[in-house]
Amino acid sequence: MAETGSKTGDFKVTPWEVKGDIDYDKLVQRFGTEKIDSKLLERIRKHTGELHPLLRRGIFFSHRDLNWILDEYDKGNKFFLYTGRAPSGPVHMGHLVVWQFAKWLQDKFDVEMWFQFPDEEKFLFKDELTLEDTKKWTYENALDVIALGFDPKKTFFLIDTVHAGLMYKEACKVAKKLNFSTAKAVFGFGDDTNVGSIFYTAMQSVPAFLPSVIKGRNRPCLIPAAIDQDPHWRISRDILPKIGYYKPAQIHGKFLPGLGGMTEQGKMSSSEKNTTIYSIDSEKEVRDKINKYAFSGGQVSIAEHRKNGGNPDIDVPYQWLTFIEDSDAKLKKIRDDYVSGKLLTGELKAILIDEINSFLKEHQKKREKAKSQFEKFVYKC
Amino acid sequence: MAETGSKTGDFKVTPWEVKGDIDYDKLVQRFGTEKIDSKLLERIRKHTGELHPLLRRGIFFSHRDLNWILDEYDKGNKFFLYTGRAPSGPVHMGHLVVWQFAKWLQDKFDVEMWFQFPDEEKFLFKDELTLEDTKKWTYENALDVIALGFDPKKTFFLIDTVHAGLMYKEACKVAKKLNFSTAKAVFGFGDDTNVGSIFYTAMQSVPAFLPSVIKGRNRPCLIPAAIDQDPHWRISRDILPKIGYYKPAQIHGKFLPGLGGMTEQGKMSSSEKNTTIYSIDSEKEVRDKINKYAFSGGQVSIAEHRKNGGNPDIDVPYQWLTFIEDSDAKLKKIRDDYVSGKLLTGELKAILIDEINSFLKEHQKKREKAKSQFEKFVYKC
Repeated sequence: MAETGSKTGDFKVTPWEVKGDIDYDKLVQRFGTEKIDSKLLERIRKHTGELHPLLRRGIFFSHRDLNWILDEYDKGNKFFLYTGRAPSGPVHMGHLVVWQFAKWLQDKFDVEMWFQFPDEEKFLFKDELTLEDTKKWTYENALDVIALGFDPKKTFFLIDTVHAGLMYKEACKVAKKLNFSTAKAVFGFGDDTNVGSIFYTAMQSVPAFLPSVIKGRNRPCLIPAAIDQDPHWRISRDILPKIGYYKPAQIHGKFLPGLGGMTEQGKMSSSEKNTTIYSIDSEKEVRDKINKYAFSGGQVSIAEHRKNGGNPDIDVPYQWLTFIEDSDAKLKKIRDDYVSGKLLTGELKAILIDEINSFLKEHQKKREKAKSQFEKFVYKC
Repeated sequence: MAETGSKTGDFKVTPWEVKGDIDYDKLVQRFGTEKIDSKLLERIRKHTGELHPLLRRGIFFSHRDLNWILDEYDKGNKFFLYTGRAPSGPVHMGHLVVWQFAKWLQDKFDVEMWFQFPDEEKFLFKDELTLEDTKKWTYENALDVIALGFDPKKTFFLIDTVHAGLMYKEACKVAKKLNFSTAKAVFGFGDDTNVGSIFYTAMQSVPAFLPSVIKGRNRPCLIPAAIDQDPHWRISRDILPKIGYYKPAQIHGKFLPGLGGMTEQGKMSSSEKNTTIYSIDSEKEVRDKINKYAFSGGQVSIAEHRKNGGNPDIDVPYQWLTFIEDSDAKLKKIRDDYVSGKLLTGELKAILIDEINSFLKEHQKKREKAKSQFEKFVYKC
């Protein structure tokens, strides 16, 4: 498949690949989204009381129509959340941080979450995957979503092959308005692309308006997701008004880098085992991977580190802490100590290992309990 | 949409258009199908006792793998029948004759019929049609199918948007094996084709193996249909063995011409009101249309007709009688009398009008009764 989305000499962002030194300002310009400014943050804070760390730190940094979402909310027209996961392998930390943020939005705004598992997507795009594989991963990945504590009364799983009785008809309405040349331009399809992959984006549009179909009235939709999925939503935003529904609004996150770092390796990816922390990793696996593979901004020797200090801006363990450490004060102290040389690379890694392992210990317990809750979350027609 | 299938200077046969002086021998060569010869007819007769008039008269004239279907049948591995109707308007006589033949196959071989109503197809291919329209026509068309007397215990309606929960997953298996260049070559798609139309043929393949999926064992499939649908089945035949199912076998019918004749007007079409006899036409409508529009092979004056006789080979009313008159003896007498000039054009038309009106009178009664049976025929998952 050809490469599309946004691509320059330095970085590439598509729904299938994210790599390079990403200039998020350029990306916002290229994609035509808006940055979340202090005024908008203030507006969010009025509703939420406090700002989520990922908002405070500019990790959820870009949006489309978020002001409109809040206008409607203020008028009493509540939005619903929509995000999803193409089930093709185990869930990693990059997924969990986005979903934790989505859960925070659910709690603070008291809204529904429609969570899509497009179990046909990776089957269609990857030769080696079977529908049995993606069925298995749907279940496994769903356990992680449930473990994060989404409200079972307000959270609905849509599994494409299971809910096709509801979704295919709606996808056809989208598909009728999308011709091959547009799909080709947005996703880089060619003559060798299979016809299922070509159709698929129509299925990904459906959860953005299906809750409106079900309720029988037009409801605003807000999609929290990493910004690489934006091309799909651009299509939804183009077509949904043509078939009588609102454009879905979006709030975009930056990428959690793989342990190898953004420049060398790109965003964290399920298929790169050594540089990815999975939700089901053992304490030892977490410790070993971070110690061995996490790209460090520290100096080559302790003496030199004490003298010159480390560079947190290229240090993956520090970058990771900006995604998962709740306390701004603690994070600032870590940064200061690292820059001054007081904190060594090994010590910084140890902090991250502890944070992740204590989080995963709890998460894995909740994940076990989630096994009895799966069916409760699957949307009942 | 570009024109494809088989096309020469003289005639054109695609899933969307059939027009011109069709040379069926050339068409068999072009499509790569086999003619039904006397040996195969004899083989069928051993099972059915007598041959259906449409077989005796060479109207069902071509096939793919029909000998294999009978081999399997002889071994006790019964086939199932699969045909369908894209619901976009009222049913006409051209549909009814094919389905009557299919019903005869069901009776004689005691087999299941899986009848597809792809209610998204015409919605995707025709700008002006809504899914509400195609839902209405699904019901209306289904009444005609039921009225023909298919066995409710052995006949299963599949309605694409209703049964997508069952079908979409299977369609994805087909779609993964079909790339855009093949779809383009077979159907003439271009950059302006919508992505739903591009995907659709995968849904049309599904009923050819869905009964195997449901039963959990590979079952032979025989598709009785007019030969213009062959391009869809060529794709099915290419792909189904790759995903573990038999190639569907086919038995192909010639086209019932519109009242204007094959050369001028093409096969009977739901959208050409004046030259089409619908299943719901009144006696007067049938009489008026045939008298006014049916292309005649008779002479310009009675005197000349008495002297030189008519030409049954270009006479549409006579052609129609070859499709619907059961008695070979009666048909032969009509032909002889017409050729000799004994039977006038008006008299020949009167015979046809009587036959159609007496058939439709009964059909319309059964069609009314079918309203209470519709749900019984819809496949229950």
